[in-house]
Amino acid sequence: MSGEGEARPLVLVAGAGALPRIVAEAALAAGRPTRILALRGFAEADLRARAERVVDVLDVATILDQLRAWGACEIVLAGGVSRPSPAALASGVAAWRNRRELAEIFGRGDDHLLRAVIRLLEDEGHRVLGAHEVAPALLPAAGPIGGPSVPPEARATMAVGFACLAALSPFDIGQALVVENARILAVEGPEGTDRMLARVADLDRGRGFMRLLGGAQTKAEGVRVLVKGAKAGQDPRVDLATVGPRTVARAAEAGCRGIAIAAGATLVVDRPSMAAEADRLGIFVVACDPPREDPRA
Amino acid sequence: MSGEGEARPLVLVAGAGALPRIVAEAALAAGRPTRILALRGFAEADLRARAERVVDVLDVATILDQLRAWGACEIVLAGGVSRPSPAALASGVAAWRNRRELAEIFGRGDDHLLRAVIRLLEDEGHRVLGAHEVAPALLPAAGPIGGPSVPPEARATMAVGFACLAALSPFDIGQALVVENARILAVEGPEGTDRMLARVADLDRGRGFMRLLGGAQTKAEGVRVLVKGAKAGQDPRVDLATVGPRTVARAAEAGCRGIAIAAGATLVVDRPSMAAEADRLGIFVVACDPPREDPRA
Repeated sequence: MSGEGEARPLVLVAGAGALPRIVAEAALAAGRPTRILALRGFAEADLRARAERVVDVLDVATILDQLRAWGACEIVLAGGVSRPSPAALASGVAAWRNRRELAEIFGRGDDHLLRAVIRLLEDEGHRVLGAHEVAPALLPAAGPIGGPSVPPEARATMAVGFACLAALSPFDIGQALVVENARILAVEGPEGTDRMLARVADLDRGRGFMRLLGGAQTKAEGVRVLVKGAKAGQDPRVDLATVGPRTVARAAEAGCRGIAIAAGATLVVDRPSMAAEADRLGIFVVACDPPREDPRA
Repeated sequence: MSGEGEARPLVLVAGAGALPRIVAEAALAAGRPTRILALRGFAEADLRARAERVVDVLDVATILDQLRAWGACEIVLAGGVSRPSPAALASGVAAWRNRRELAEIFGRGDDHLLRAVIRLLEDEGHRVLGAHEVAPALLPAAGPIGGPSVPPEARATMAVGFACLAALSPFDIGQALVVENARILAVEGPEGTDRMLARVADLDRGRGFMRLLGGAQTKAEGVRVLVKGAKAGQDPRVDLATVGPRTVARAAEAGCRGIAIAAGATLVVDRPSMAAEADRLGIFVVACDPPREDPRA
């Protein structure tokens, strides 16, 4: 943050999940007063209680008016908003006049939507920060995060996963996959990481016969890993992948032995809880520098 | 088929679905006598009724013994076998002695499994044919297959889909995806095309707000297309993607405007029924020569 930035009020636009709370607490710990704009239908109760205003995500006019009233701001957009609740929609759509423009923005995907929001805020004279710029602990450097150490046989599997994400990177698609040995079991789409992991658990139910085969199963199935990666041309203010304690639990249910995230490109929400959950479930969690070479070359 | 091949008996190993019946009928129409080995738990009733033997897919010893008894054969493997039914498993696993080897083959994915089967059959002196070599009508050349003509605005969407499949091609993953404008909504994993399409239909239920936005929706959502492609290094005897009338119905349920398949790399099962279903539902179905250039370049 520049000296000029320090003079601006910090505004947290709070969506769903634990991320907004972590940003608010980091700002508080840094002695930086923060105004909270909580998004109705998304922000959790404690954030709404602390908010100066609770607004509808689709009520763009009210949000912009409020920000203008506070002057030029530094703004952090934190927490999920991609699936408005029916309540948010009913009021939001009613308040919005240019339905065509709104539909066009939404129809082009979350990435485009969030970038359009950033451009809009910058046009208004605000500055948009990434959550990690206010709460640097969210973005771990390369190294172990929790659970057991990475088994040597998992290295090649992780490399295949990162290589596949790199191949997908130019396309508008999720930033995560599940890989088992050299086989990609699932690629994340707009449904998100939790549902992708549920899909992998379903695959296993369909492959019950592997269990019939008994002792040879483990060696044959090898190491299954959830890999979350960076995306070409991503904007770290909105595009970073996110993991947290719940990710560890869901990955364990999907039969994963570990989670590998791209260092500097994945936000870890509540690292102490995530590490504890990883220890409890015996799931390795590691941040990796994205490999430069294709392991298949 | 070479002259030498003509002298060999043709054996159809029949798994699930309509494909084995089509191969059997094409062989009959070509005046080529065919022996059918039906896989218990997979082959449909009429195929089992016509079969010389009904065998368990995991009972490899019995299958190989039967083929040896018939001499050097030309063999077509047709129909799905990737998810043995509990009944097939119970008997199959009991009959198989080297569980470790079996588990290792199964654990490496369907591609590896089928290629291992081909190698095994070739080691035994048999020749393995693709279904399209017996029933050439299964593999359409580039051009329209059914439904309305391709809308011009779908061309770029289809090109993105084929480019993404090309990027995924070196990895062990499905050969299909659903793309809407430039956005990839789903990539097929081991769950298969039907389940992938069901996932896309679920996404829409989560995005009900698009419908609230009314008339602008169509333009904003643009054209959604199911794209099925070729895979680098695929073996056309076992690796070809398959579509049929049911694919059209499922694609329509998933909100697709059309289906684009890679010409020469996708089997069309029951083309007349597929074309009729496409006409009925207004879904375009087209076979395309894989584009050489990346549309994003």
